[in-house]
Amino acid sequence: MTAEIISVGTELLLGNILNTNAQYLSQELAALGITVQRQSTVGDNHDRLADWVREAKDRCDLLVFTGGLGPTADDLTKETVADCYGDTLVFDPEEWDKITAYFAASGRQTTPNNRKQAMVPVHGHKIENRHGTAPGAWFEQEGRCAVLMPGVPGEMKAMWTEQVRPMLLARQNCALHSLTLRVLGGESNLEYKLRPLLENQNPTAAIYCKTGECEIRITARAATDAEGAEKCRAYAKKFYDLLGDAVYDEDVPGLEHTVVRTLKERGLTISAAESCTGGLIAQRLTNVPGASEVFGYGFVTYWAEAKAKLVGVDPAVIHRFNVVSAPVAAQMALGAAKASGADIALSVTGLAGPGGGELLRPVGTVYLGAAREGKVWVKKLFVSRPDRGLIRARAAQGALELALRLAQGKTPEGALLLGEGPGALEALDKAFLTE
Amino acid sequence: MTAEIISVGTELLLGNILNTNAQYLSQELAALGITVQRQSTVGDNHDRLADWVREAKDRCDLLVFTGGLGPTADDLTKETVADCYGDTLVFDPEEWDKITAYFAASGRQTTPNNRKQAMVPVHGHKIENRHGTAPGAWFEQEGRCAVLMPGVPGEMKAMWTEQVRPMLLARQNCALHSLTLRVLGGESNLEYKLRPLLENQNPTAAIYCKTGECEIRITARAATDAEGAEKCRAYAKKFYDLLGDAVYDEDVPGLEHTVVRTLKERGLTISAAESCTGGLIAQRLTNVPGASEVFGYGFVTYWAEAKAKLVGVDPAVIHRFNVVSAPVAAQMALGAAKASGADIALSVTGLAGPGGGELLRPVGTVYLGAAREGKVWVKKLFVSRPDRGLIRARAAQGALELALRLAQGKTPEGALLLGEGPGALEALDKAFLTE
Repeated sequence: MTAEIISVGTELLLGNILNTNAQYLSQELAALGITVQRQSTVGDNHDRLADWVREAKDRCDLLVFTGGLGPTADDLTKETVADCYGDTLVFDPEEWDKITAYFAASGRQTTPNNRKQAMVPVHGHKIENRHGTAPGAWFEQEGRCAVLMPGVPGEMKAMWTEQVRPMLLARQNCALHSLTLRVLGGESNLEYKLRPLLENQNPTAAIYCKTGECEIRITARAATDAEGAEKCRAYAKKFYDLLGDAVYDEDVPGLEHTVVRTLKERGLTISAAESCTGGLIAQRLTNVPGASEVFGYGFVTYWAEAKAKLVGVDPAVIHRFNVVSAPVAAQMALGAAKASGADIALSVTGLAGPGGGELLRPVGTVYLGAAREGKVWVKKLFVSRPDRGLIRARAAQGALELALRLAQGKTPEGALLLGEGPGALEALDKAFLTE
Repeated sequence: MTAEIISVGTELLLGNILNTNAQYLSQELAALGITVQRQSTVGDNHDRLADWVREAKDRCDLLVFTGGLGPTADDLTKETVADCYGDTLVFDPEEWDKITAYFAASGRQTTPNNRKQAMVPVHGHKIENRHGTAPGAWFEQEGRCAVLMPGVPGEMKAMWTEQVRPMLLARQNCALHSLTLRVLGGESNLEYKLRPLLENQNPTAAIYCKTGECEIRITARAATDAEGAEKCRAYAKKFYDLLGDAVYDEDVPGLEHTVVRTLKERGLTISAAESCTGGLIAQRLTNVPGASEVFGYGFVTYWAEAKAKLVGVDPAVIHRFNVVSAPVAAQMALGAAKASGADIALSVTGLAGPGGGELLRPVGTVYLGAAREGKVWVKKLFVSRPDRGLIRARAAQGALELALRLAQGKTPEGALLLGEGPGALEALDKAFLTE
């Protein structure tokens, strides 16, 4: 089955809006085994749209429209597509009642324009909109289909998942199951390494790289959801076999969610002393609902004096080893644990630039610390692209990675443990500088 | 002049990538006075692409392509478009030298595939790529033009601004000047209020709403840049007249940049004690290069005990007024100023949800504090949409707004000043609860 996605809206052609609908629908259609041959964006112009629909109708089995279902004169997708599919529209009192009720609820009056939205196909059928006033529509002629959904992403996605996708699945009589793996790292070589697994038909697997991590989305078509789930699980195993515990979780939006959940499960708390990330770690942790169970204190110690005052870093240590150094990262983490009483404490000190780089410590040099039970591990990170936002994001991600491993009771990869007794800080500093 | 934007890439049709190029180019072309009639995305398939280009070529004056200039067999935009415009490609030794040098610099070897990228038009001309290996191309036949640029957004934007846009301006012999106003607020009513000003031909003005603020982009075409600048300035005045000092700055990426710059200009420093924003304010301030000049200390006081321990909030006050209250916000701000020695200190305490709401304090209730010279102002914010991320973002934005006004020596709008003497906290609390 082949499809084209047609986004209708002059505001898209003017670039006033970023078209995220097309990407979403492309992913969804691919998962359904429907090949998207084209995405197009056209304006709110009856004749141009009509030409367009006639061309497209002959090219593929399914046209997926978003936008142009509103009440204004500009909104003419429904009328135009109805013509092209030999259908007509009729006033639907039930929809009209919904629209008037919807307006009343928000203390507004309907205008005559709104009646337009209550017009529904005669031969095709309407698609209920549970999240807005504009119903969608389904047209069909000689096995060629068109589905019309609102342009507002929230309404479109809801209509798609609640009604259009189930309808398409029913037509193909199959079920769809998805599973998302979250993977630490995410350099392009990962994509290269996984390529063979990403060229499968069913389940399909797609990789989306984010800062310091990747998302692998596995989707299986099957007769039942249970069977689809089995297929996904079996295919996921191939990734686990290749990637081991770099796969840190499934179906979560990001690493901070796994860190918070793991801490909760083990009854642990966490804190952070942040210099170059400036609160990014605390912000990510507290973005997780219920974070207050595990996170109580965060320290943004941007100045040297703040490092001394808030988390007890020894100014002599800063003076001796430089503020961007392993010993300072170690003292920041130990100090944050002490000042907050948290079980695990993270620290970050580094150069996010653009200024402040030097030969020994170029911009992008970051030291990460992670303390637990009086022990502290330090890891060095270097981000070669001189991009302040990227350096900060990678640093926060790296620190959360350390937190996850400590919470899991594992030894963090690539990190060094601060030794005991006099000379330990020197040894740690040397270990990194002579790397 | 009419144009179509054609993005080439199967990865776009699969939804693996979000197409941001089309929006960028649509904005740019609109500013040039070129009407974008369609945006399309097609796959890496020679025949389909050829059909497509032939159709599109007859429809408009200019086809703008991105993608498909790479070295692999899939990359065939250049070959295909050359055919359609009656042109051919020839090997360009100069480009080849650049490519080999580029590879050598990164310690890699070119493959035979890469020679493909050194092929340039015979009748048309190449467009130099200063940021990657793939040169662009310009084709022309009977006044119909096609421009080909790489798909990688960074390379495309650079090629566009450095070479393609100047070329198009030269053809129209005119100059282009842009000016961006940043505006506090950003509810849809603002867009409604400004609509008349947004429907102008030259200068054009477009509004982009972000969380708690809007961006108004004014672009003028003129014979010279100076004349364009004048036009923009004159048109900007209309917005200033309507919006007053809600227009907080020009040509900056966000409010935190204006806050940091204003603090620097006045030799002031800032700190923050954050509860529900959990470090978001510190993170935004420190995302500004050179923030260390004005920001040294940040306190993430997520727990009540942290509010007491780090910024000296009186536990009795929390007990008496609730942790989400104006008195607590006031004490947090005063305490942060004291603990950090900063001239201005911000505070946030609120309910970001999803849990924890109650009748008197539903989710979305936030109190913002801002202290300067021993005085403290408190503002209440309510975000009706129960969206944790949105509530946190609006809270941080609101706090930065307070910081800007205090730094400017203005009285923050809609904020109440904590009075003196006994009963001041009670009075403040009442003032908000009886609102």
